[in-house]
Amino acid sequence: MDKLLDTINSHEDLKKLNTDELTALCGEIREFLIDSVSKTGGHLASNLGVVELTVALHTVFEVPKDKIIFDVGHQSYVHKILTGRRSGFDTLRQFGGISGFPKSTESEADAFNTGHSSTSVSAALGLARGRDLSAENYSVIAVFGDGALTGGMIYEAMNDAGHTKTPLILILNDNEMSIAKNVGAVSKHLRTLRTSSVYFRSKYVVERFLKKIPFCGNAIVNMIKHVKRAFRRLVIPTTLFDDMGFHYMGPVDGHDMKSLISCFEYVRGENRPVLIHVQTKKGKGYAPAENNPQKFHGISSFDKATGETKKSGETYSSRFGATMLNLAEKNKKLVAITGAMPNGTGLDEFMKRYKKRFFDVGIAEQHGVTFAAGLAKAGYVPVIPLYSSFLQRAYDQTLHDVCLQKLHVVFPIDRAGIVGADGETHQGVYDISYLSHMPNMTILSPATLDQLTYMLDFAVNKFDGPIAIRYPRGSAQAENIPPEFTLGKAQFIQKGNDITIIASGRMLKRAQEVAAILGKSAEIIAMPTIKPLDEAAVISSAMKTGYVITIEDNVKIGGMGSMIGTLLKEKQIDCKFKIFAFPDTPVTHGTVDELDKLYGLNALTIAGKVRS
Amino acid sequence: MDKLLDTINSHEDLKKLNTDELTALCGEIREFLIDSVSKTGGHLASNLGVVELTVALHTVFEVPKDKIIFDVGHQSYVHKILTGRRSGFDTLRQFGGISGFPKSTESEADAFNTGHSSTSVSAALGLARGRDLSAENYSVIAVFGDGALTGGMIYEAMNDAGHTKTPLILILNDNEMSIAKNVGAVSKHLRTLRTSSVYFRSKYVVERFLKKIPFCGNAIVNMIKHVKRAFRRLVIPTTLFDDMGFHYMGPVDGHDMKSLISCFEYVRGENRPVLIHVQTKKGKGYAPAENNPQKFHGISSFDKATGETKKSGETYSSRFGATMLNLAEKNKKLVAITGAMPNGTGLDEFMKRYKKRFFDVGIAEQHGVTFAAGLAKAGYVPVIPLYSSFLQRAYDQTLHDVCLQKLHVVFPIDRAGIVGADGETHQGVYDISYLSHMPNMTILSPATLDQLTYMLDFAVNKFDGPIAIRYPRGSAQAENIPPEFTLGKAQFIQKGNDITIIASGRMLKRAQEVAAILGKSAEIIAMPTIKPLDEAAVISSAMKTGYVITIEDNVKIGGMGSMIGTLLKEKQIDCKFKIFAFPDTPVTHGTVDELDKLYGLNALTIAGKVRS
Repeated sequence: MDKLLDTINSHEDLKKLNTDELTALCGEIREFLIDSVSKTGGHLASNLGVVELTVALHTVFEVPKDKIIFDVGHQSYVHKILTGRRSGFDTLRQFGGISGFPKSTESEADAFNTGHSSTSVSAALGLARGRDLSAENYSVIAVFGDGALTGGMIYEAMNDAGHTKTPLILILNDNEMSIAKNVGAVSKHLRTLRTSSVYFRSKYVVERFLKKIPFCGNAIVNMIKHVKRAFRRLVIPTTLFDDMGFHYMGPVDGHDMKSLISCFEYVRGENRPVLIHVQTKKGKGYAPAENNPQKFHGISSFDKATGETKKSGETYSSRFGATMLNLAEKNKKLVAITGAMPNGTGLDEFMKRYKKRFFDVGIAEQHGVTFAAGLAKAGYVPVIPLYSSFLQRAYDQTLHDVCLQKLHVVFPIDRAGIVGADGETHQGVYDISYLSHMPNMTILSPATLDQLTYMLDFAVNKFDGPIAIRYPRGSAQAENIPPEFTLGKAQFIQKGNDITIIASGRMLKRAQEVAAILGKSAEIIAMPTIKPLDEAAVISSAMKTGYVITIEDNVKIGGMGSMIGTLLKEKQIDCKFKIFAFPDTPVTHGTVDELDKLYGLNALTIAGKVRS
Repeated sequence: MDKLLDTINSHEDLKKLNTDELTALCGEIREFLIDSVSKTGGHLASNLGVVELTVALHTVFEVPKDKIIFDVGHQSYVHKILTGRRSGFDTLRQFGGISGFPKSTESEADAFNTGHSSTSVSAALGLARGRDLSAENYSVIAVFGDGALTGGMIYEAMNDAGHTKTPLILILNDNEMSIAKNVGAVSKHLRTLRTSSVYFRSKYVVERFLKKIPFCGNAIVNMIKHVKRAFRRLVIPTTLFDDMGFHYMGPVDGHDMKSLISCFEYVRGENRPVLIHVQTKKGKGYAPAENNPQKFHGISSFDKATGETKKSGETYSSRFGATMLNLAEKNKKLVAITGAMPNGTGLDEFMKRYKKRFFDVGIAEQHGVTFAAGLAKAGYVPVIPLYSSFLQRAYDQTLHDVCLQKLHVVFPIDRAGIVGADGETHQGVYDISYLSHMPNMTILSPATLDQLTYMLDFAVNKFDGPIAIRYPRGSAQAENIPPEFTLGKAQFIQKGNDITIIASGRMLKRAQEVAAILGKSAEIIAMPTIKPLDEAAVISSAMKTGYVITIEDNVKIGGMGSMIGTLLKEKQIDCKFKIFAFPDTPVTHGTVDELDKLYGLNALTIAGKVRS
């Protein structure tokens, strides 16, 4: 066979290779990754960074007996390649194809599904304590980036794990990045640790040496351990991780196979919680990705030779960013907060131009929202754009700290509705449901880019209180919609007598398509304000047409259609009524069009159902 | 005047007193607190613990110019006493009276409203950065307990604050307790620090001395600082807080007025983030509370002389605890998790009897839920009882880690619905709305204690997947309800022809009362399963009676009534329909009866509205 990679489908195959062969294998995996992702798109830079790390893990540990949990999970491609899913990579992140994230339904090698940051240690601790209760014997490993360390949940888990001494292996994959450059005091702390690399080697050598002396006896080992501890304290500062009860090891060169394998073999039998600090380079081995890891974090298909992608046009994110620049110039009280995504949310230029009024809090949505509440209390107008599926991590802070106090915080919700290829953990189809019942919350949704601009100006300059603006990934726009809107007022986009079609945001275009197909005299009502609902408009149109349908980019339960249905029922409006929304089931990956079709939200299906 | 306390209404009054007088004042405050809370009930132990701390803060700092944020906020009584609200204490936590938590609507001395744990540093950082942007000059102080350090959000905030050097004063009120004994690795770390108390004094003395030398010059100060740092590293370990970028000071005796005032004066002008580690005793100065701080954390009225409260009868919490003991005996896979509330949730006996199968994760709901997901993956049946308003802190983990993976985790939701005196931050009136749209989630609600027992057995032993059981504070029960239920099936409690009354949980009793008042032929339908909804039962009854009302202990938007209304509308059932639920506004404090009445959910009002 030409390629080593073709022979590898499990840890048993890896165990047959020597270090040089494993290193050669890593080269092949990189080539495969670059080639494959250049065609399908996907997360590249993070996977290139963990090639050696993942190969070493699968060489030393035995999956699926041993459990590896990948935090966030977008760096699990190499793991998937090594566990029999190489051939599926031409369908990566595509409808019906393999997921870009760990999925236990896809392979038993995937010990726990991930997607959002900082969950891995909690899940791993659950598996580890379950193992101990059952008196079983296997290793549980959580692999997380330094970015995940900005999320508080991981400290909750470490505080719990470090306390009780449950054996657990944490691997800190330190590449100095979240999606963007990493932030925060802990990140600084890691920088200090990186400079003390001499320590790990010496310590490791000494402990190995001692372990090899026969009949050495516990007393001597303990004495030497005491001396070591004293020595250690003199030479390097105690780490944050030691303070939290973990046995810290590192830093280890994450691209050196020999070091990685020695280290993993060493910790394999450890009877306590261990943290291994591994240093890697995001994008390793592919120059365009090494030079611009943020671009190659999640990327669409690209030219392998140059790293060039197709220029994408204006999106809601970029329009948001551009509008913020204009608003910030006029309103000196405007400040912006990001949860580690200046680029993804469109704030990169704002970050440069308004440095003092820009705050990157890390992957810390909870803190970000309450921090915004504090800024609002101090007289500022904080704007905190978050993806829909990430804002849900700050549900309590939005309700408890912002809404109950009725503070003026602006929540631009990017990636609201279907996000596509990232799949079920990232679909933004819950935000209407989780925000609409919060007291004092206002929810807007633009149907065009210009309407987003108008709404953002309104939310920042002409409003007081918590206000969310949900908009989709990409740039889908309805046609002929005036950007102006009045808070709490519906827009009658098209007058008609036979049916009322109510839609909001991305789905307004769908409403127009449905109306065109139906050929009936359809009344199209846009809901730029989802909450408070324009009850009068809904009722008057329903009374006129006698038939109301609603279309939304959200699940049905607790969504806009439910609010309208409840209203029509309570007011005893005599009309037919049907909701078109996403069902009560996880929404898989695929393109927006594929998923709309799958769940009956394409124009033809809606029109067909209306007719029947 | 007899009493010092009568002369104190602001920091200006405090500044007139010397240390001895301030100490005497603390005695008076304790007396006042004990006397007052013995009559009204409230949080006692935590307030007795912070008397000197709060008096010292208000002596050194100038509120409201300086901002003090009390984490959780149940320890703000002394602060309220010192800021002109002493005379309101006979109405504490009562309907229309002063709140048991900070409320900026009550006094401008309350810089930020709190209620849930670990939010204070985020809010304080927002205020502090706002201050700096406006180039204003005041101190921002966050006061939090060591319990709050088990919540991840505070690390997110410290990671952010420690990085950017925004001047900020954190006061760690270390009493070794959450509500129960505190847990976790950080708690252990604090224990280590407590033993190194000699350090603070020497350091403090040296720095003060140096500052007093005129013309000392920066070079010398810096040199000495270097020496100090080196000395410090030799003598005591670097603290977790230093690693996170804070200047750590402590521990300070939290009951010694002189030390506290010196310390606060010292940090007042500091131009960087500082953390002061203060040691206090929960319940200080009142023997019954010192001996049983958990009982005196939140307490009903009691006998001042003995500390005795009226024995309360069986509650849903105690029944939950008793049932868990029975279930655990038979099902060895059953494990229980608490978020720092073994007592409040009824698990105290379980904790003792099934030590290995019990996990207190701290005030860490996010970690708790994903940890439960891990245990479920390992083949266990985790039961994680949380108060409704605290489960909302794990919204994302419930959706992302449990529901999307359809894992068998049991969520007993205690304090669902109105909780009463704790007020708006603690009302459990959102859980139906925030859970019902999660895919794979099942929601039950018992109307009697026996039904809770039946449901818990069902959820643990006869079900697979995420399942929530919501039950109220206290013991309100409907009458003549069989405990048995069938998943997804409504119970026809009373047959009738004129009106259908649908209710669930605590409100089933209300449905019975309303039916009795109406005197009509009412059909009463209990919904032991809120999700999935028994659509057939609703529809058939609605068609028969032509009039449906729903009553629930949740807000209207996204609640059970909305689900039913939407169903009836989509199915075109011709009937009148009305939802009785809590409105879209924060729900204040008061007794359950008072609040039901205020919001029109008492039987008379409902019956009256039905008639008209």
